[in-house]
Amino acid sequence: MSTTGFDDLGYARPDTDREARQGLPEIVYGPGKSAAQIAGVVTSLLRANTGPVLVTRVDPDDARAVLAAVPGGEYDEPGRLLAWRRAAPRGFRLAVLSAGTSDGPVAAEAAAVAESVGLTVHRIADVGVAGLHRLLAVRDDLAAADAVVVIAGMEGALPSVVGGLVGCPVIAVPTSVGYGANLQGVTALLAMLSSCAAGITVVNIDSGFAAAMAAYRIARKR
Amino acid sequence: MSTTGFDDLGYARPDTDREARQGLPEIVYGPGKSAAQIAGVVTSLLRANTGPVLVTRVDPDDARAVLAAVPGGEYDEPGRLLAWRRAAPRGFRLAVLSAGTSDGPVAAEAAAVAESVGLTVHRIADVGVAGLHRLLAVRDDLAAADAVVVIAGMEGALPSVVGGLVGCPVIAVPTSVGYGANLQGVTALLAMLSSCAAGITVVNIDSGFAAAMAAYRIARKR
Amino acid sequence: MSTTGFDDLGYARPDTDREARQGLPEIVYGPGKSAAQIAGVVTSLLRANTGPVLVTRVDPDDARAVLAAVPGGEYDEPGRLLAWRRAAPRGFRLAVLSAGTSDGPVAAEAAAVAESVGLTVHRIADVGVAGLHRLLAVRDDLAAADAVVVIAGMEGALPSVVGGLVGCPVIAVPTSVGYGANLQGVTALLAMLSSCAAGITVVNIDSGFAAAMAAYRIARKR
Amino acid sequence: MSTTGFDDLGYARPDTDREARQGLPEIVYGPGKSAAQIAGVVTSLLRANTGPVLVTRVDPDDARAVLAAVPGGEYDEPGRLLAWRRAAPRGFRLAVLSAGTSDGPVAAEAAAVAESVGLTVHRIADVGVAGLHRLLAVRDDLAAADAVVVIAGMEGALPSVVGGLVGCPVIAVPTSVGYGANLQGVTALLAMLSSCAAGITVVNIDSGFAAAMAAYRIARKR
Amino acid sequence: MSTTGFDDLGYARPDTDREARQGLPEIVYGPGKSAAQIAGVVTSLLRANTGPVLVTRVDPDDARAVLAAVPGGEYDEPGRLLAWRRAAPRGFRLAVLSAGTSDGPVAAEAAAVAESVGLTVHRIADVGVAGLHRLLAVRDDLAAADAVVVIAGMEGALPSVVGGLVGCPVIAVPTSVGYGANLQGVTALLAMLSSCAAGITVVNIDSGFAAAMAAYRIARKR
Amino acid sequence: MSTTGFDDLGYARPDTDREARQGLPEIVYGPGKSAAQIAGVVTSLLRANTGPVLVTRVDPDDARAVLAAVPGGEYDEPGRLLAWRRAAPRGFRLAVLSAGTSDGPVAAEAAAVAESVGLTVHRIADVGVAGLHRLLAVRDDLAAADAVVVIAGMEGALPSVVGGLVGCPVIAVPTSVGYGANLQGVTALLAMLSSCAAGITVVNIDSGFAAAMAAYRIARKR
Amino acid sequence: MSTTGFDDLGYARPDTDREARQGLPEIVYGPGKSAAQIAGVVTSLLRANTGPVLVTRVDPDDARAVLAAVPGGEYDEPGRLLAWRRAAPRGFRLAVLSAGTSDGPVAAEAAAVAESVGLTVHRIADVGVAGLHRLLAVRDDLAAADAVVVIAGMEGALPSVVGGLVGCPVIAVPTSVGYGANLQGVTALLAMLSSCAAGITVVNIDSGFAAAMAAYRIARKR
Amino acid sequence: MSTTGFDDLGYARPDTDREARQGLPEIVYGPGKSAAQIAGVVTSLLRANTGPVLVTRVDPDDARAVLAAVPGGEYDEPGRLLAWRRAAPRGFRLAVLSAGTSDGPVAAEAAAVAESVGLTVHRIADVGVAGLHRLLAVRDDLAAADAVVVIAGMEGALPSVVGGLVGCPVIAVPTSVGYGANLQGVTALLAMLSSCAAGITVVNIDSGFAAAMAAYRIARKR
Repeated sequence: MSTTGFDDLGYARPDTDREARQGLPEIVYGPGKSAAQIAGVVTSLLRANTGPVLVTRVDPDDARAVLAAVPGGEYDEPGRLLAWRRAAPRGFRLAVLSAGTSDGPVAAEAAAVAESVGLTVHRIADVGVAGLHRLLAVRDDLAAADAVVVIAGMEGALPSVVGGLVGCPVIAVPTSVGYGANLQGVTALLAMLSSCAAGITVVNIDSGFAAAMAAYRIARKR
Repeated sequence: MSTTGFDDLGYARPDTDREARQGLPEIVYGPGKSAAQIAGVVTSLLRANTGPVLVTRVDPDDARAVLAAVPGGEYDEPGRLLAWRRAAPRGFRLAVLSAGTSDGPVAAEAAAVAESVGLTVHRIADVGVAGLHRLLAVRDDLAAADAVVVIAGMEGALPSVVGGLVGCPVIAVPTSVGYGANLQGVTALLAMLSSCAAGITVVNIDSGFAAAMAAYRIARKR
Repeated sequence: MSTTGFDDLGYARPDTDREARQGLPEIVYGPGKSAAQIAGVVTSLLRANTGPVLVTRVDPDDARAVLAAVPGGEYDEPGRLLAWRRAAPRGFRLAVLSAGTSDGPVAAEAAAVAESVGLTVHRIADVGVAGLHRLLAVRDDLAAADAVVVIAGMEGALPSVVGGLVGCPVIAVPTSVGYGANLQGVTALLAMLSSCAAGITVVNIDSGFAAAMAAYRIARKR
Repeated sequence: MSTTGFDDLGYARPDTDREARQGLPEIVYGPGKSAAQIAGVVTSLLRANTGPVLVTRVDPDDARAVLAAVPGGEYDEPGRLLAWRRAAPRGFRLAVLSAGTSDGPVAAEAAAVAESVGLTVHRIADVGVAGLHRLLAVRDDLAAADAVVVIAGMEGALPSVVGGLVGCPVIAVPTSVGYGANLQGVTALLAMLSSCAAGITVVNIDSGFAAAMAAYRIARKR
Repeated sequence: MSTTGFDDLGYARPDTDREARQGLPEIVYGPGKSAAQIAGVVTSLLRANTGPVLVTRVDPDDARAVLAAVPGGEYDEPGRLLAWRRAAPRGFRLAVLSAGTSDGPVAAEAAAVAESVGLTVHRIADVGVAGLHRLLAVRDDLAAADAVVVIAGMEGALPSVVGGLVGCPVIAVPTSVGYGANLQGVTALLAMLSSCAAGITVVNIDSGFAAAMAAYRIARKR
Repeated sequence: MSTTGFDDLGYARPDTDREARQGLPEIVYGPGKSAAQIAGVVTSLLRANTGPVLVTRVDPDDARAVLAAVPGGEYDEPGRLLAWRRAAPRGFRLAVLSAGTSDGPVAAEAAAVAESVGLTVHRIADVGVAGLHRLLAVRDDLAAADAVVVIAGMEGALPSVVGGLVGCPVIAVPTSVGYGANLQGVTALLAMLSSCAAGITVVNIDSGFAAAMAAYRIARKR
Repeated sequence: MSTTGFDDLGYARPDTDREARQGLPEIVYGPGKSAAQIAGVVTSLLRANTGPVLVTRVDPDDARAVLAAVPGGEYDEPGRLLAWRRAAPRGFRLAVLSAGTSDGPVAAEAAAVAESVGLTVHRIADVGVAGLHRLLAVRDDLAAADAVVVIAGMEGALPSVVGGLVGCPVIAVPTSVGYGANLQGVTALLAMLSSCAAGITVVNIDSGFAAAMAAYRIARKR
Repeated sequence: MSTTGFDDLGYARPDTDREARQGLPEIVYGPGKSAAQIAGVVTSLLRANTGPVLVTRVDPDDARAVLAAVPGGEYDEPGRLLAWRRAAPRGFRLAVLSAGTSDGPVAAEAAAVAESVGLTVHRIADVGVAGLHRLLAVRDDLAAADAVVVIAGMEGALPSVVGGLVGCPVIAVPTSVGYGANLQGVTALLAMLSSCAAGITVVNIDSGFAAAMAAYRIARKR
């Protein structure tokens, strides 16, 4: 084990101390890294830590190459997530809502990451605000959740409505679904930040990963 | 009466033909005009047309000066509207919804203009989406409307929800109420244009006037 | 028939109650959905409703696959629209104007959707403001319309000019035609919202669909 | 008590049901409301609920007028907060960090709201990243917190650094402190959303209120 | 006379050579300069050149102070222009069109500068595109012009229409007249640059000065 | 010949009257039109007018197809211009400067259009401001020009420097050459509009065409 | 002296260790701090360090109050700088160029800070690129400099030209001088970052302070 | 050798005088130039100067073609740099830090250019602020540097932290690494310019080249 708290691989310095500080090993951001680099970082993290090791936003081809080099992992293709040593459930119920079918990939990433770190995910798709009864029909599911991730593109209105229905933490994820005035998700992002529902928080566009990790931070402190 | 279709006052050319083309005299945009200029334009329009003559966005001081120069008008202070020869009701029911109390001045302008051109206005305030039951409680009022003007600042979510409830025309007005990520109403504007509710239309930020006139165009064609 | 007002297909919740609320079944947004998903949603909507069922922005390949799975529909390739059970004409005349030949695809979508929901469309192409006589030559057509959809890219000036000529509802559609300072249609969008012609309304960039649905809302309330 | 879940005051519809749904009465947004309107809404909320009633962003003059009309409240001038029936502490430790002395008013609002709803606040000022040892000196305080609110203007870097040190929830608040490229806080906002530290969440610019409420949602679910 | 081509006043270096290079002495930009500084620069330019000396954007108070220090000049208050030794007319007809009465101050600056450098100005106000007949009524005036300055705020459509009517140079000036989506004139600016009328040129927002100088460059080369 | 001033081809309305109004037939914008549509419009314009007929932004493949359908034209590949009946030189000297070698395609379009309408072009490449002596070496060429087109990407500084050297009209063309902070040419565009050199005019990003046409308008009025 | 490397004043934590790390005590950012707070921080820094103590962006009234509380300092009103224990000259020649007279306040701040930390400043005002000979006349001054600060608003072209003339470090400061398309200095900022002159660096809008400190870092390493 | 200070190749004017002015021949910007054009410019520069000749942003295919035409050069593929006559080391230590592995290509360009012009580069990768101990572990390396280039995408926080640790010049390079709210590097750019660390300078997005050249300017003046 490293005494410096990191490994120096030249091209990367995996933070081997993060599990001690935050309860979870560093999670690897896949884009811009070669399969060999990912494999090197994962190997370092698996050795230095005992918890789950994850790599986000990995394409299927890279996933195959990494899994061949570092056995024992699993690839969630809808969520584009590579995972080794997934955590056992810790009894935290996370509802993952999405406004439309097209928001599916972001919901898949949120769910894959959340489950890999031990949260229990309940996915609810296509409850956009243009047909409110679809949302009102799942009120009991929402009431049972410890936290809610709300994913929406276009005008990003769903978090405001959910935020008015529930008292638990609401983590809003804007998506780049839409066109024109949606501005690749910037409009939904700004709308969620301007929400009239008190205490909603927001993460980066299309970042199911960030939402799952925000939920993990909450779960860890319960 | 002008044969050219306009008067040439030097500083302005009132469009005396507009009533013939569009059913309503030109409506005067107040900002940037002196009280004397407003009075001159109003006088020209009153003489050349028979319908209502309106001036928007007039401060109380200017209003007093103009009314002194051109008697017979009325000033609606909340809506900042000067009006002469207001139209008789034509049996068109316009619901004017606003998301928050702070959107009141925009709603006041929409209502003042709409009533001056003969629409029957039903105002419903403070039905923002963070407390949906307030909106659901007025569903019958919405169902009875011939068109709905929906006014909202912050994230501008209300038109999407209303657009999913009613089948009549929905005219959305973004307001500059809010701060930071609201970007003086630009966020609400872009959100409304990106709405997932089909067939919603949008007018300029804080423009109760534009919304009322859009409703008038619809009313006229019934 | 659903008692909840929607079907739960897992990946989607078709709003089977929308026809009752708004006079028209939910219209399906194609992008981001697989052909199988589209077919599933369409099947649900056809079963639960009696009116036209539409899917927007469908590529020819997907269209073929969906039509094979759900017979009885038609594909309008210029408008990229799939439609089943198109509505009978309801006697509402909609003029669809476009500023330039390059705006054709947006006009095609507006026309295809409008006709599928029962409006009678009169298309007028290439009447941009740099040659005003082309527009003035169709004044009689405009005067005969119950509403006008005005489609323009570049500077988006055409709606302002049309808005000054006619008294009926004007629905402006900015397009992403142009380059540089057009900013993918954002400039035309902002220009139309800033129009000096009173009562013009605006929908999202390149959204012939939204314009047609806005016209449908007006037609329905006549 | 209302059976509809709200009072209709004409200019406002206080959501009297919110305490039942979310554990806390509706919190009143002060700007754009007159002192009389605020007093009316507060009176309604006090009557229909049993928990704390708060009004945000109130100027001293308005505060005095409201307190005269509705006795029993307190005014926190640095946090611009009016509060009646403040909640008892519920044993949730919230650290409120700010990067610079100029971020003080936002920290004051966050602290005032959080304490009024029963959180125990520990404020730590002026620990910006240009002098890291100041932050490292309070690591024990951070480790003891159940959640951390991190307030920063200029480049908004502090939440990323804090997010790498602690495992608990981190709520980032961008402020408009700075000039030029800070763009009134938009730069800090976008930077925080782009943070390389996993699971950080963000609220609107200068909104100490939103951060406190996000913490409250977390506290409530423990 | 300077052999270096400029005077060094410490706070400023008047370009005394510009008249030789460009036919006109340097024109002084007023904002950010004290009356004493303006007077110093003007004195230098009057001594080193023989043509007109102008200062733009001067408030009445500063104008009085400068004129007291440097006699012989005139102040055009609507155009906020100070001028000494105004040029004789050179037989170049410049039409200055403005879309609305509120664009008056920009038109006044354009006219004041143009006349001071020897152009013959014909002003035509309030010919916005919402009432086309007003513009068509002045077609003969436009046809007689050697160049046209077209001033418009809001959506900035007028230059496109004028550009389609005339064959002479068209210089478009966007103004900050309007609100919301006009974005302080940026929308009109971008719209004019995206114009479908071929060969239109654009200058900075509200810069009647720049338009007049562009016309002067054309006039000089005839 | 058309009595309406245009041909109605269904997909397009060529403005056959433009030559009478402006001295030059309508110039066809290529993008978004099929080769068959271009051929149809060109045929109409060749029949109804006597001057040059041009089509801009045509790819080589489309150019070949159109030339096969409408013989007698020429294709300038660097300038992507199709031209029939090019005009004879009218004795107007246009200097076309470009800041860098990468700006070449824009300069090629400007030159091709300008020469096709009868201007005499003198091209000067790679005289960017980081090596001023290159520009100063061509001062005599600049002094001999009747107008100057100045093309620059990156920071767009060249027009300001040229504008300070010459007294003739300066038409600035921003290009999308550069990366990052250049924002696809928007930075150069805004910089040119903010130029400290008096009387510079600006056209759309990468629009050599617009610059050439602006020069043509000047040439025509000499 | 502090063993933690900072003082904890409650509202601020002066970084008393910075002089050891960076050769200069922390420099205090004035805005948003009361005179009493400034005095407290200055007192702390004077006690814990031996070098110059500076406060930027102080208004004259606050300056007087602080100087009364902490004697021995000096106030530079044009540069809005408070300074105690100004450093002795270290033989580093810094040229401070400004494009226009209106950029004076930014140049004053740069000069005041630079001189207070021991640099020798040579100010050269009003050498904008529209009159190049003014700049070429000071080439010898530029050649003698160890570094150059170049201050410009509007289009921000001056740093590119200077960057092509000299081989020493060039620090560009965009200013908010200008209007419209200058966008409060953002245009100049982006232009400078896009400069075609190699190796120019940029600091925040209007920040003479940042430029002086960048020069100080260079001077310190000589 | 040229007496004009440049060669006129028609498509380019290599600045053969730059080595005399600035100590280094002109560096060629590769994009938008053909291999033949690059070869021509390089040949001119090699003949007229004695120092290193560099071409940036060259793809491998173009590199091969140019090297075949102009022997004696070397191609650094990670840094996409072509170089002839690389300079001998001048004893200036430049630390090149990058926040994440994905920033590697920008670091490679910075290092390749810096070494080619004679600086001694020490690269330190993956020291992002979410794991501060990785950065603190290299404090001695930083203290030994004459200047530091700090490369970061996402929120761009690293330069602020480094700027607080070292007293030498800090040149910040924002990268386009990240997504959504990162806005292709604009967010990191604006954040770095808003840094609370005094005296940090910034170059264009992804421009390792600009950072290396800024360091060269500093090195040259030592």
